[in-house]
Amino acid sequence: MTSDPTELADRFADAWNSHDMGALAGLFEDAARFVNVVGMFWRSREEIRQAHAFSHESMFRNSTLAVKAVENTALAPGVVAVHVHWHLEGHLGPTGEPEQPRDGVLLLVARETPQNGGWQIAVAQNTDAIPGVVTIPQR
Amino acid sequence: MTSDPTELADRFADAWNSHDMGALAGLFEDAARFVNVVGMFWRSREEIRQAHAFSHESMFRNSTLAVKAVENTALAPGVVAVHVHWHLEGHLGPTGEPEQPRDGVLLLVARETPQNGGWQIAVAQNTDAIPGVVTIPQR
Repeated sequence: MTSDPTELADRFADAWNSHDMGALAGLFEDAARFVNVVGMFWRSREEIRQAHAFSHESMFRNSTLAVKAVENTALAPGVVAVHVHWHLEGHLGPTGEPEQPRDGVLLLVARETPQNGGWQIAVAQNTDAIPGVVTIPQR
Repeated sequence: MTSDPTELADRFADAWNSHDMGALAGLFEDAARFVNVVGMFWRSREEIRQAHAFSHESMFRNSTLAVKAVENTALAPGVVAVHVHWHLEGHLGPTGEPEQPRDGVLLLVARETPQNGGWQIAVAQNTDAIPGVVTIPQR
């Protein structure tokens, strides 16, 4: 929980960089939805935790996520869309080789929990920025 | 505008398939945000219209978008997240060659306009499903 939805961006990056998947999952509601950069669809906090635990034991285990900018869009009282512009370094490819830095946009749709004034993520979707193209390169 | 947020999925596909960018843009709020599959960030209905007009004059001009499934998540009174599972065929590559069909997930966060009971899209993000990988293939 956090008292300012904008802080969710830094909390997410902090949890990522300390590879603390409990802390990362704790930013999400129990029934949160998360679509990752290749269209994997996770439908609960526990699925989100397990998926990130897997990737942070492998390709992301030494990676560092930096928040470049955050844009908030208020949708209703207690509902906000937070667009997190991120930069990732130190991640590994499928065979363990170092990969080039990546940039992207993580959308977090957060809700305030009335009981304690905290904010959690209800819906998230993440996208890699691929420069120089207007749609996804096809295989 | 539509009286049921779930209908936004079919309205989006109908506008796509008739390549009617005015109809497509009309599904969005004036200040809507749209992150496309390669991280392009459009910040108004007009930017969304122009971007889709460009792609529907070229790579998507004969393409057909089908809605496979829709999942609604109510976020607050008058705010809903609509996950649209889509299938695309008939699109062209950068040099005009036919491309293989694609699948993906389009997130539409929609709001009800109190004055007329209609729903419009406030925030959208689109992701291609890339089978067999857990993160985006790096160049």
